[in-house]
Amino acid sequence: MAMTMTQKILADHAGLPEVRAGQLIRAKLDLVLGNDITTPVAINEFEKHGLSGVFNRDKIAIVLDHFTPNKDIKAAEQSKQCREFAKCNGITHFYDVGQMGIEHALLPEQGLVAAGEAVIGADSHTCTYGALGAFSTGVGSTDMAAGMATGECWFKVPSAIRVRLTGQPKKWIGGKDVVLTLIGMIGVDGARYQSLEFTGDGVAALSMDDRFAIANMAIEAGAKNGIFPVDEATIAYMKGRVNREYQVYEADADAPYEKTVEIDLSELRPVVACPHLPSNTKPADEVNDIAIDQVVIGSCTNGRLSDLATAAEIIKGRKVAENVRVIVIPATQHIYREAMRLGYLYTFIEAGCAVSTPTCGPCLGGHMGIMAAGERTVATTNRNFVGRMGDPSSEIYLAGPAVAAASAILGRIASPEEIEQGGN
Amino acid sequence: MAMTMTQKILADHAGLPEVRAGQLIRAKLDLVLGNDITTPVAINEFEKHGLSGVFNRDKIAIVLDHFTPNKDIKAAEQSKQCREFAKCNGITHFYDVGQMGIEHALLPEQGLVAAGEAVIGADSHTCTYGALGAFSTGVGSTDMAAGMATGECWFKVPSAIRVRLTGQPKKWIGGKDVVLTLIGMIGVDGARYQSLEFTGDGVAALSMDDRFAIANMAIEAGAKNGIFPVDEATIAYMKGRVNREYQVYEADADAPYEKTVEIDLSELRPVVACPHLPSNTKPADEVNDIAIDQVVIGSCTNGRLSDLATAAEIIKGRKVAENVRVIVIPATQHIYREAMRLGYLYTFIEAGCAVSTPTCGPCLGGHMGIMAAGERTVATTNRNFVGRMGDPSSEIYLAGPAVAAASAILGRIASPEEIEQGGN
Repeated sequence: MAMTMTQKILADHAGLPEVRAGQLIRAKLDLVLGNDITTPVAINEFEKHGLSGVFNRDKIAIVLDHFTPNKDIKAAEQSKQCREFAKCNGITHFYDVGQMGIEHALLPEQGLVAAGEAVIGADSHTCTYGALGAFSTGVGSTDMAAGMATGECWFKVPSAIRVRLTGQPKKWIGGKDVVLTLIGMIGVDGARYQSLEFTGDGVAALSMDDRFAIANMAIEAGAKNGIFPVDEATIAYMKGRVNREYQVYEADADAPYEKTVEIDLSELRPVVACPHLPSNTKPADEVNDIAIDQVVIGSCTNGRLSDLATAAEIIKGRKVAENVRVIVIPATQHIYREAMRLGYLYTFIEAGCAVSTPTCGPCLGGHMGIMAAGERTVATTNRNFVGRMGDPSSEIYLAGPAVAAASAILGRIASPEEIEQGGN
Repeated sequence: MAMTMTQKILADHAGLPEVRAGQLIRAKLDLVLGNDITTPVAINEFEKHGLSGVFNRDKIAIVLDHFTPNKDIKAAEQSKQCREFAKCNGITHFYDVGQMGIEHALLPEQGLVAAGEAVIGADSHTCTYGALGAFSTGVGSTDMAAGMATGECWFKVPSAIRVRLTGQPKKWIGGKDVVLTLIGMIGVDGARYQSLEFTGDGVAALSMDDRFAIANMAIEAGAKNGIFPVDEATIAYMKGRVNREYQVYEADADAPYEKTVEIDLSELRPVVACPHLPSNTKPADEVNDIAIDQVVIGSCTNGRLSDLATAAEIIKGRKVAENVRVIVIPATQHIYREAMRLGYLYTFIEAGCAVSTPTCGPCLGGHMGIMAAGERTVATTNRNFVGRMGDPSSEIYLAGPAVAAASAILGRIASPEEIEQGGN
């Protein structure tokens, strides 16, 4: 029976010759992930059930990234609980303040996910690793607890939507523009419990960082996972990071897709998702009369090195607009160091940006840039729901780093072309 | 009548030929300061009394440094109120996220305080500017409101303690060791409502950053202010920063001091102030069996460039101890940029430190490094009171940057000499 790429990975991890959409399976896991918010809940479940140990101390990752460096006593207690559990169980991949980064940027960077693997994480954006040709999805803390104990998880095999990408994107178009455009087309429940399988000759035109941003937001269309084929770029990315064997899966030529969505990358324009849904996508230059108070460049979606490079290219030699505060958050310590070495951080500081230590921080309304009533932020984050980044009357406009940087300079939503045309 | 340095400044600002200790005076102010926590209270008072405008928009400084970048909605609302007040009143020296720094590092750096000036700030560590030979002191938000409206403030003229500094400090001894030693000698109420006037040939051996750290903590001995004579170092510091006329005051040779405290700088050892008082001072190498969880290098006391240079010298080429998280917080954007340019930040990141954007943050238990129950932090901050940095059962050990850096490497309280002798 023909299978999608996702179905093939799941079949192998379930030890079955084939699976079909809707089938319930139990699959072996290559990695179980949690953060400082979700892991304590999982630990409590783990201990409540009297579980005596983890299935494999090398296949669990705990990353303290959400409310760290600790924003308050509660956050400190949660971090402490994670730290003690990691120590007690000899967890190899425990990342504390100073060593860490935002989980979904950190794990690929550290080689903890490879093509063909199956990963669950107690965080909805765990779907990010589909960029590497892995099956990965977000779960609740109870599933995380069970995963830590057994190394397995139950899944309902998803059906799939094929997203065929063609053409070459213009300058300033990044992964965020692709995925916001897609979500704008299919809606926030357009892929509910389905796989988004990206194909087509346009894939080769997307950098790994672009693919991470796209897979990361699969969940914002309701998808179970998003996944990219493994190509030269994927293999180059894993080289030097992943030292173990990995398997490359391909969808069958006649795999069963519920539908196909076509996106011509060459036609894309820089976009923003206006409040209060990621599907409320509009070309940036059609909403460029909206004044803003804050810009956030960071997160598991767009805090990677190429995102900072794009922002720095636009900001270099310019100053951020008066009355706008700009917060740049490199996603990992490694990205921070490289962005410093390459001069991007210097550019940001010279322009009047605040540069934060890696943290999820403002994305989920945690800390490091929360909004007051009526304020507006252009953010490279992934959700613009009501009140997500502060007061319920505040507004989030989602965008890629180019639009965010241009908006920082002009003090309103702006397309990067406006800067090139002599803005500021 | 002979007067102390402080009394001479106050007399001139009160338009009086002389003043004596205990006298109530009304003095003109050269600067009125507030931050994101205290200014909203002052604004509310200002508006409650129907005050129509500020006395001089160039002589008010509002710095958003405590809970910024906004840690929560309340902090965001406070910042917003400050921002709107500053805009409405045309406040020249308003510092928002991305332009700012910790107030007491920022104002001298920006040339907003000069020798001989009189400054009030709605923050207890406003006494910092005594390092420049200015009279400066912390006030409540109501006094800030009155100061903003009238440009004047009532004072009770303080009596004074003379602190005679002699000798040359050994390597690794900084301003923090001097002031913690002093507070250890006289106690946390040892200079209550008095001036601490620093004199002696030892002053010349102290850098301006050392003097800022010392004057900063005058309040921790209960002093109304701390003040240093103006010498070549002071004038060099102000050059290029202060473009207006300023006046250099000297205490009369027979000025009335209640007592004199002698400190031979050459005899000082690196110290820590153990919980829960800044006066609980001990040589670092006598308490070096105390394991720690966290190190914070920053604050208005010790977040300046030379503090980061000292820490980087010790940390360079080493790694922070396992199980210790180290948070480095440059005090201003300018210090951040220079520390980056000079390679200090690279050293910190390589060693496994988190480098934060400028903020008061953890010092007052705000955010960016709050402690869980039972945790211990070595901090270059200024107060180690119960619960100041998190849970009431957590502990703060105050120290200078050299002890903090050595402790970061060894994972316990440590003297910098231990590192030189081959630790780690």
